[in-house]
Amino acid sequence: MTTGTRSPAGELSATAARHLLLHMTPNGSLGPEGENLLVVRRGEGPYVDDADGRRYIDGLSGLYCCQLGYSYGPEFAEAADKQLRELCYSPLWTGSAHPTAIELAERLSRIAPVDIEHTFFCGGGAEAVETAWKIARRYHCLRGEPGRVKAISRRGAYHGLTVGAMSFTDDPGLTEPYGPPAIGTRFVSNTNRFGLAPEFADDEVYTAWLLAELEAAILAEGPETVALLIAEPVQNRGGCITPPKGYWQGLRVLADRYGFLLVADEVITGFGRVGEWFGGGRYGARPDMVTVAKGITSGYAPLGATLVGTKVTDVINRPGAVLNHGYTFAGHPLSAAIALRNLEIMERDRILDNVRTLQDDLARGMTALTDLPIVGDVRGAGFFYACELVGDLDGGGFSDRARTELVTDLIPRRLREAGLLARVYNRSAPLVQIAPPLVSDRALLDRIAAIIAGTLAEASARL
Amino acid sequence: MTTGTRSPAGELSATAARHLLLHMTPNGSLGPEGENLLVVRRGEGPYVDDADGRRYIDGLSGLYCCQLGYSYGPEFAEAADKQLRELCYSPLWTGSAHPTAIELAERLSRIAPVDIEHTFFCGGGAEAVETAWKIARRYHCLRGEPGRVKAISRRGAYHGLTVGAMSFTDDPGLTEPYGPPAIGTRFVSNTNRFGLAPEFADDEVYTAWLLAELEAAILAEGPETVALLIAEPVQNRGGCITPPKGYWQGLRVLADRYGFLLVADEVITGFGRVGEWFGGGRYGARPDMVTVAKGITSGYAPLGATLVGTKVTDVINRPGAVLNHGYTFAGHPLSAAIALRNLEIMERDRILDNVRTLQDDLARGMTALTDLPIVGDVRGAGFFYACELVGDLDGGGFSDRARTELVTDLIPRRLREAGLLARVYNRSAPLVQIAPPLVSDRALLDRIAAIIAGTLAEASARL
Repeated sequence: MTTGTRSPAGELSATAARHLLLHMTPNGSLGPEGENLLVVRRGEGPYVDDADGRRYIDGLSGLYCCQLGYSYGPEFAEAADKQLRELCYSPLWTGSAHPTAIELAERLSRIAPVDIEHTFFCGGGAEAVETAWKIARRYHCLRGEPGRVKAISRRGAYHGLTVGAMSFTDDPGLTEPYGPPAIGTRFVSNTNRFGLAPEFADDEVYTAWLLAELEAAILAEGPETVALLIAEPVQNRGGCITPPKGYWQGLRVLADRYGFLLVADEVITGFGRVGEWFGGGRYGARPDMVTVAKGITSGYAPLGATLVGTKVTDVINRPGAVLNHGYTFAGHPLSAAIALRNLEIMERDRILDNVRTLQDDLARGMTALTDLPIVGDVRGAGFFYACELVGDLDGGGFSDRARTELVTDLIPRRLREAGLLARVYNRSAPLVQIAPPLVSDRALLDRIAAIIAGTLAEASARL
Repeated sequence: MTTGTRSPAGELSATAARHLLLHMTPNGSLGPEGENLLVVRRGEGPYVDDADGRRYIDGLSGLYCCQLGYSYGPEFAEAADKQLRELCYSPLWTGSAHPTAIELAERLSRIAPVDIEHTFFCGGGAEAVETAWKIARRYHCLRGEPGRVKAISRRGAYHGLTVGAMSFTDDPGLTEPYGPPAIGTRFVSNTNRFGLAPEFADDEVYTAWLLAELEAAILAEGPETVALLIAEPVQNRGGCITPPKGYWQGLRVLADRYGFLLVADEVITGFGRVGEWFGGGRYGARPDMVTVAKGITSGYAPLGATLVGTKVTDVINRPGAVLNHGYTFAGHPLSAAIALRNLEIMERDRILDNVRTLQDDLARGMTALTDLPIVGDVRGAGFFYACELVGDLDGGGFSDRARTELVTDLIPRRLREAGLLARVYNRSAPLVQIAPPLVSDRALLDRIAAIIAGTLAEASARL
C-alpha cells in the first residue's frame, strides 16, 4: 500500500474503513481506501470543515442536535473543566445522586410542559424512549392494569433503534431483519396530508378524521390493552410533518378517555428546533411524558432524558415501589454540566427568539420551492423543513431512471458540491430536509434555500 | 417549608426528591425532604465526599467504571477543551465520521482480542449489547440463516435494561413487570460452584459438566435457531463469578460447532478490572464480539462500543449491505477524546500493572474473610471481589429476622459508617461486593478488606 501519497483525509478514511463500523452505512462499499467517506474535522459557527479543508453549511445541525452550532467550544470547555475537576462521575443509582444532575432536573422542571416535574436521565434518545415504555408499564401495573401491553405509534415514524424503541419505528428498512417487534404496536396515520383528498385541507375536518381513525384503532385493539401513544410534535421521518390544529388536544382527550399515557417524543423537536423549549408547546400538547436528547446539550455531550408528569410519578413513586430501571452513564456529571450551560446560553443569547424572528423568512424561502416541478410539497416549522419530491410518473412517483439519476445521484451530489449538508431521503417518499443550527442568521437561511432551489431547478429540468 | 434551616445537603436532597427520578431506587421512600439520599459532591483519588463533607472510599468505582479514580480531572479537562474547541459533535452516520472516533477505533483494534479489528460505537453498555444482538441477526440473515432468533445467556446474569438487553438479564426483580422477553433466551448455568457437589472443585470435571449442559441446551433449542451466546468473563451479578479452566475455550468450540456467535460482555471486566485490557484475555476467551462501556473512559464521559471480529465484518460488510443500526451520540467526539486520553493514561501510569501487582494481596485479604461464620464463599479476580454470605438457617439461608437485621440494615450501615461504599446485595444470594479504583494502593486495599472484615465479624456475632 502506498500510503505515503495519501492526503490526510485519505489516510483517515482508510483507517476508518479498516477499523470503524459506521451507522446506517454500507460499510463494505466504503472500500479499503475509504472512498465515499466524509471526515468532518472541525466546526465553526454553522459550518463544518472536512479533513481536506472543504467547508460546508451544516444544514442538519450534525444530526438535529447542534442547536448552537460549533463556536461555543470555549464556554463548554470551561464548564467541562469545572465539572471534571470537581466530580468526574457519580451514578444516579440506588439512592445516590450528584448536585449537577439535581440542578439540571430542577432547571428542566421550570421549562417543562405543565404538570411535569420529574426527570429520569439516560444517555440518548433511544434510551429515553425505552424508559418511557418501562415507566408506562410500571404505571399501569401499579394501578392494577397489567394488561396494558401495547403501544400506538404513527406510520413512518422513527423513535430509535434499540429493540424496544424499534417497536415504535415504522420502517422495514430499519426494522428488518431484526425479527418481529418486541412491543405490540399499532400504527395509525401520521399527520401528512399531502396527496390526500381536498377536504382535508380544512384543519377541523382533518383533525376529526385523524382522531376518529385513532379512536377506532384503540377500540379495535381494546382500550384496556393500550399502554401508551408516542408521537413527535413534528414528525421527522416522512419530512417535517406538522399536526393540524386541535390534533394534540384531541390526543389528550383520547388518552384521558381510554387511560393510556401520552408520550411526546421531543428528541428532535425539543430545545428550540421549532421555536419553543418543547415543540409540543407550539401545538397545545399536554403529554404525560416527554422524551428528549440531542439538543439538550446542543450536541456538545451525550445526554438523554425522560420527563415524567406528576400524574405518573404519583403512582410510580408510591412508598416502597422501586423504579427498577437504569443506566450507568445516565445524567453523567459532565453531560449534565454541559446541558446546564447549554440552557444558560440558549436563554442568554436568545436562541429561541432567533428562531421565532427568522422562521417566517425560512418558511417563505422554502415554500417558494413549490413552484419547481419536482417539488410536490414543502412543510415544517421553526428551523425544520422538508420538500417532498414528485417525479416523472403519473401520480407523482419516480421512474427507476429518474430516481437513480436525480434522487440518488444528482441532488445529493449537487447539494454537497454547493457546500450544503442536507438530508436527502431516497426511500418511500423522496425528500430533501434541513434542520440548520438555531444560531443561523437570515443570510445563511437564504443561502440554504437558494442552494436547494438551484439544485432542485436543475433536477426539475432533467425530470 | 422552612428551607432556611436546611444544610446544603438537605437542600439538594429535597430538590432531588421533587425533581429527579433515581434509578433502582424506591423514589417515593426518599421522602419530600430527601431523606436517605447520598449526594456525592466531589471526588479525589479513590475517595468521594458527600455534600456534608463526609469522605468515603469508593469501593465500587462509581458503578464499576472509575478505573482511575477522581484525580485525573485536569488531564481530561485538557483533552475536553481541545476537542470541544475543534469539533463538538459529528455523527458516525450515513458515511460520515470524525478523526477522534477513527483514531479511537484504530487504538482499540490494537488491544482487542485476536481477530477483532472493527468497532461500532454507542453510548453505553445496554446499547452495546443491543448492537451485538442486531449485528448477530444481520450476520446470520446475510449467511442465509434467518431462523437464528434465540440467545443463550447465563443464570442470574445482568446485561442491561433496555428491552432487548433485558432479554439476556435473568432477574425477575429487574425484568418484571415489563412483560415477556423480547428475544427468546435460554439461560444456562453460570460458573458459580459454591454449594455444588465436591467433585466440581476439579476444574476439568466442572468445565465438562458446564459445557455438556450448554451443549444439551443448544441441541434442545435446535442449533439452527441460536444466534448468540452472551457471557461476562467474570459474571458480576451473583458475585464476581470466575470461570473454571477451559470454560471459554469450550464456549469457542461449541460456538464453532453449532454456528452461533460468542459475545463477551466486558462492560465491567474490560479496561483493567481483572488486570487485562479485556477480562476474557485472562481466561483464554476468543469471542466474535465484545461489548464495552464504563471503564473505556474511566467514567470521565459516557461511551460504549461493540467490538466486532473479522469473521463477522467479512459478512456484514459485504458490498451494498447497509448496517441499518445507529445512535446519534455514538462515538461522540468529546467521549472519544476522553477515551483516547484514558487509554494513554492507563498505559503511561501502568494501571494494569498496578492491578497485576496488588491483586494477590487483595485476594489474600478477601479470602481471609472465609474464616468468618457469615461468609460462605469469597471469589473474584483482579480488583473485583465478592463475599457470598451464609445465614442462620440449615443449608446456609437467612431467616427473615437475620436477613432484615443484618443484610438489609447492619452490614450496609456499618460499611457506610466506616467510610466504605461497597455493594450489598439482598436478593437471592446475599453478597458484599467491591470493585475499587484501579489506582488503589496496597494500604487502601488492606483498609477495604479490614472494614469488610470488621463489619462481617460484627454481623457474624449477631447471626
